[in-house]
Amino acid sequence: MYPWIVENLEVLRRRKPLVQNITNFVVMNTTANALLSVGASPVMAHAIEELEDMLKLADSLVINIGTLDSHWIKSMERAAEIASKLQKPIVLDPVGAGATKLRTETALRILSKGKISVLRGNYSEIASLLGEDIMTRGVDSSTYSKDNAMKIAMEAAKKFGVVASVTGPTDFVSDGKRVFAIENGHPMLGRVTGTGCIVSALTGAFIAVSNPLEGSVSALVTFGVAAEMAYKESAGPGTFHVKLYDWLYKIDAEILQENAKVKEIVLER
Amino acid sequence: MYPWIVENLEVLRRRKPLVQNITNFVVMNTTANALLSVGASPVMAHAIEELEDMLKLADSLVINIGTLDSHWIKSMERAAEIASKLQKPIVLDPVGAGATKLRTETALRILSKGKISVLRGNYSEIASLLGEDIMTRGVDSSTYSKDNAMKIAMEAAKKFGVVASVTGPTDFVSDGKRVFAIENGHPMLGRVTGTGCIVSALTGAFIAVSNPLEGSVSALVTFGVAAEMAYKESAGPGTFHVKLYDWLYKIDAEILQENAKVKEIVLER
Amino acid sequence: MYPWIVENLEVLRRRKPLVQNITNFVVMNTTANALLSVGASPVMAHAIEELEDMLKLADSLVINIGTLDSHWIKSMERAAEIASKLQKPIVLDPVGAGATKLRTETALRILSKGKISVLRGNYSEIASLLGEDIMTRGVDSSTYSKDNAMKIAMEAAKKFGVVASVTGPTDFVSDGKRVFAIENGHPMLGRVTGTGCIVSALTGAFIAVSNPLEGSVSALVTFGVAAEMAYKESAGPGTFHVKLYDWLYKIDAEILQENAKVKEIVLER
Repeated sequence: MYPWIVENLEVLRRRKPLVQNITNFVVMNTTANALLSVGASPVMAHAIEELEDMLKLADSLVINIGTLDSHWIKSMERAAEIASKLQKPIVLDPVGAGATKLRTETALRILSKGKISVLRGNYSEIASLLGEDIMTRGVDSSTYSKDNAMKIAMEAAKKFGVVASVTGPTDFVSDGKRVFAIENGHPMLGRVTGTGCIVSALTGAFIAVSNPLEGSVSALVTFGVAAEMAYKESAGPGTFHVKLYDWLYKIDAEILQENAKVKEIVLER
Repeated sequence: MYPWIVENLEVLRRRKPLVQNITNFVVMNTTANALLSVGASPVMAHAIEELEDMLKLADSLVINIGTLDSHWIKSMERAAEIASKLQKPIVLDPVGAGATKLRTETALRILSKGKISVLRGNYSEIASLLGEDIMTRGVDSSTYSKDNAMKIAMEAAKKFGVVASVTGPTDFVSDGKRVFAIENGHPMLGRVTGTGCIVSALTGAFIAVSNPLEGSVSALVTFGVAAEMAYKESAGPGTFHVKLYDWLYKIDAEILQENAKVKEIVLER
Repeated sequence: MYPWIVENLEVLRRRKPLVQNITNFVVMNTTANALLSVGASPVMAHAIEELEDMLKLADSLVINIGTLDSHWIKSMERAAEIASKLQKPIVLDPVGAGATKLRTETALRILSKGKISVLRGNYSEIASLLGEDIMTRGVDSSTYSKDNAMKIAMEAAKKFGVVASVTGPTDFVSDGKRVFAIENGHPMLGRVTGTGCIVSALTGAFIAVSNPLEGSVSALVTFGVAAEMAYKESAGPGTFHVKLYDWLYKIDAEILQENAKVKEIVLER
């Protein structure tokens, strides 16, 4: 365990960062409740006319392309530009990249228009954004492995100049030089919609009070441990989902210290 | 009980069909969680630009007009056309048909534009789509009765060339020739929003691994029994709602066999 | 306790008023479930083309600007006009007024276009709509105090010709002449998104069976007491949220009488 994970959670709860979300219809409620539960303040606002006013108040921005369409894409791109100008950290969650051309291209365009701090997605989404580049580096992105996931996190970080937070059975967070591996969480997360989106929203809260690398790791560990605690009290995906919020609220230094499974990978040079 | 209900559930869980939903804002989260709980994979995508890409990946399409507007209607119509062309089974839930002209006309237009496999709605919605036709057949659709509901299911099936799945105190599913009656479920379902929409989404999952008639029956029985189990553990609509997901996850062959109340009606010719 | 609070709840459950909501994406599910739990009937419809058809059926209209954009603003304004013409009571929840110019101006425009019955917001939102007017009356709206909140409720009621329902540690409801103070509720409400929006939706249900002043008070007391009961059974924001629906369903005359903390303030003239 790294002491800065606990510190970040404590600072988050003291400062209650305002996290602006331009996210998908499916998870708006879910992510707002996750942010409130952990101690942050969510705001959902996407109208072009108010983006600048709201982003001036916000401490970070989370863009999630889960139910994108042309109208919302314009808001996402404009928000990325404004937040970059205002030097607010930005998380991009490229939901479904690789599944459709529209999603892959939209994610790449947002990456090019704004100064994205953290790119948070699952293995196949991040791999799809790297396209054929990653193949030429000896990674067969069609097959998940811990080693491939780690390489994809590092490559994405370097290529896009971001911290890449790649979630899967093992999560990897990299800024292109360093890599952290996190093994918290529970398979039941796959039975509740929006749990990846919650991680992105929580990452937005943590990087508002920390830096992109440590903030991303802190979000993953906090959420993963909360999920493990929630699972113990659940009888299926419904109760598990509800208990997730309870544990995002109850999680503290002691619970984190006892349950965190995180380590920096020492890279061979 | 019919053995194919249990088989369909088992096949669904093994194949995890990808169900694309173009649905209403109120229930997007609810239906995605219901699909995940039972063992299917939901995707929510409505942008015209990505409909074809996504429908190629999907195993079925569910269109729900609950919070329609002109922008979304275009997506729904286009999706129905593409899914028909790709021979993916389609469920249409005409939420609120009869309440406004826009809803009735939109539902009828989608029925005419796409090859709809299952029309899933409540008694008054399906009756409104039949319009005056049904009156001329001796059914006073303004008054619910089991007999009227059965006739409406049969008439809708014949008129629109679909399987009609008409829910109410007793549910009736008909392909125009055969009719099944299902008496599972619980009145508490009326105290949680989107439970009809969940049935439509689950129908989308079941017909992706079965046929429209047996898939619709399987969805209704599975959901109805899950609701009965959930009710026993609930203290009101909040806990009932949560337990619904738990039981969609936990329901199995044994629970189905003990609780299913379904029979094919022998029709006099 | 006032006997009309219990009576209003009983009439509401008997009549099941149809409450049309044009609300934000985050809370559509939440508010629909709250309305169903307490015994009302929600409908969510925003398409310009069906507003009149639907409002003819509805018993009241709730407009909530939480995730406004130009497309939705048009629907909100048109709905306010139509509902006014049809003499249906309207609740306006100016979510985020004061945070951005767009929100403040939209709320003021809806107030001017429709005959709003109840303006339901928190202290800072309602204060922002009063603008500098309130300063000239000796209220420093930048600092919350019970006295300031009461004055803001009275001023807003007079200025806009509405019942103002101003929520906070103590809630104040005024029609400009009379003021009620309500001290029910629980701080955990701040950890669940949309609890203010639930109050607005419930207000829409209560004023459909009562008058704007007593209906607003009844909604606040009913919801506040339900929250207190829910808190006793909760282990965090997740279970608290779920239990809120259970208690909106279970709350009755006896529970209200034992727990209501409401009184009319006797004003010095």
